[in-house]
Amino acid sequence: ELVLGVIEHLKPQSTPLTGKRVTITAGPTQEAIDPVRYISNYSSGKMGYALARAARNAGADVTLISGPVSLATPQGCQRIDVKSARQMHQTALEVATRSDIFIACAAVADYRVGDIAEQKIKKSNEQMQLTLVRNPDIVAAVASLAQRPFVVGFAAETQDVARYAKDKMQRKHLDMIAANNVASPDSGFNVDENALQVFWADGEKTLPRASKQQLADQLIKLITTQYQHETN
Amino acid sequence: ELVLGVIEHLKPQSTPLTGKRVTITAGPTQEAIDPVRYISNYSSGKMGYALARAARNAGADVTLISGPVSLATPQGCQRIDVKSARQMHQTALEVATRSDIFIACAAVADYRVGDIAEQKIKKSNEQMQLTLVRNPDIVAAVASLAQRPFVVGFAAETQDVARYAKDKMQRKHLDMIAANNVASPDSGFNVDENALQVFWADGEKTLPRASKQQLADQLIKLITTQYQHETN
Repeated sequence: ELVLGVIEHLKPQSTPLTGKRVTITAGPTQEAIDPVRYISNYSSGKMGYALARAARNAGADVTLISGPVSLATPQGCQRIDVKSARQMHQTALEVATRSDIFIACAAVADYRVGDIAEQKIKKSNEQMQLTLVRNPDIVAAVASLAQRPFVVGFAAETQDVARYAKDKMQRKHLDMIAANNVASPDSGFNVDENALQVFWADGEKTLPRASKQQLADQLIKLITTQYQHETN
Repeated sequence: ELVLGVIEHLKPQSTPLTGKRVTITAGPTQEAIDPVRYISNYSSGKMGYALARAARNAGADVTLISGPVSLATPQGCQRIDVKSARQMHQTALEVATRSDIFIACAAVADYRVGDIAEQKIKKSNEQMQLTLVRNPDIVAAVASLAQRPFVVGFAAETQDVARYAKDKMQRKHLDMIAANNVASPDSGFNVDENALQVFWADGEKTLPRASKQQLADQLIKLITTQYQHETN
């Protein structure tokens, strides 16, 4: 690994993102129910962290806004830890205004608990109603900023993947969207490999099954090309 | 650490639980909402795993029934992995019938989602109602077995710790209960130290703040004493 690291260091690097600020959200969010319980999802953060590594290798200044994961911070990246969707929303809006590219890879909870209990809820009834309220839509909020970065979204779907993804891209005014099928047992959450279908305004590309790092490298190249195309 | 291991190995061991089968539940449970979302809690499993190690060191045959945690299986212990409270309940009842001592250390979800969605739930409304239904009470079920083991429960509380714990012990017919205050920032879930108040029918003992392994060693000693007292 050391030898590979040295070779990597010596070979001429393609750093098309030098001087560019790339912000990436990663991991799940945790939405508190009470002091001990929460709602979350199976996102491991691996894809977002792989994208941070790929963007850094392409020369970018990378800020990673991360939900609770058990991953080491990629070398050379700045990392801001958050728990809830609302914390991630606030941090993302602050950082996005000074970003060139924003990649929303986190699996943000769509809903949070409306009324978080201050004490542990005692079980008393056979049934319990939990009222969930919508969380802010982070990627849509970033895409609607006056001075907006190039915005890339993700879509994790269990059915009609392409249709839902393209609809989401248009509805939220994203520049690009990367979709994957999380129902498939060998792709999506908490596995090391994945496959992606990437869509932008006038094109699309399928990135076939590969390691998340290989996919991240390919996706950063696609993003760089489209970013340069849109800003030139 | 190797030297300590050798010293540990050479010194005369006190193995009062030799030939005894000890079953320990550990970690959180995960209750699915849909294919990607779940409800869980902040339990790390550290206390249950420390108890498994302590019981094993005291000579017991240890079975660990574990929710999703990122911990290595303690040497010499058998480990059965489960996700939901219902899976843990079923496994616990099977294993408990052939156990001498049962320690319910897992932070089992009191409620599960009544109707788990087969597809990822699309966010559509501003509010969403999640109907939760009670999970089976694992420790109470084990304590009401005809051929019951010596049963130790845990109580994680954020207020009135001693009162809730003693009430829980009596209501569920436990032989012993270990209570901790999870509202305290330096004890309880996902930290390496803790403090316990232990209650049994005619006694109680406070185990002051210490590492979870030290507390586990002390608790296994207390359990052994009471177990021998009740079975002799």
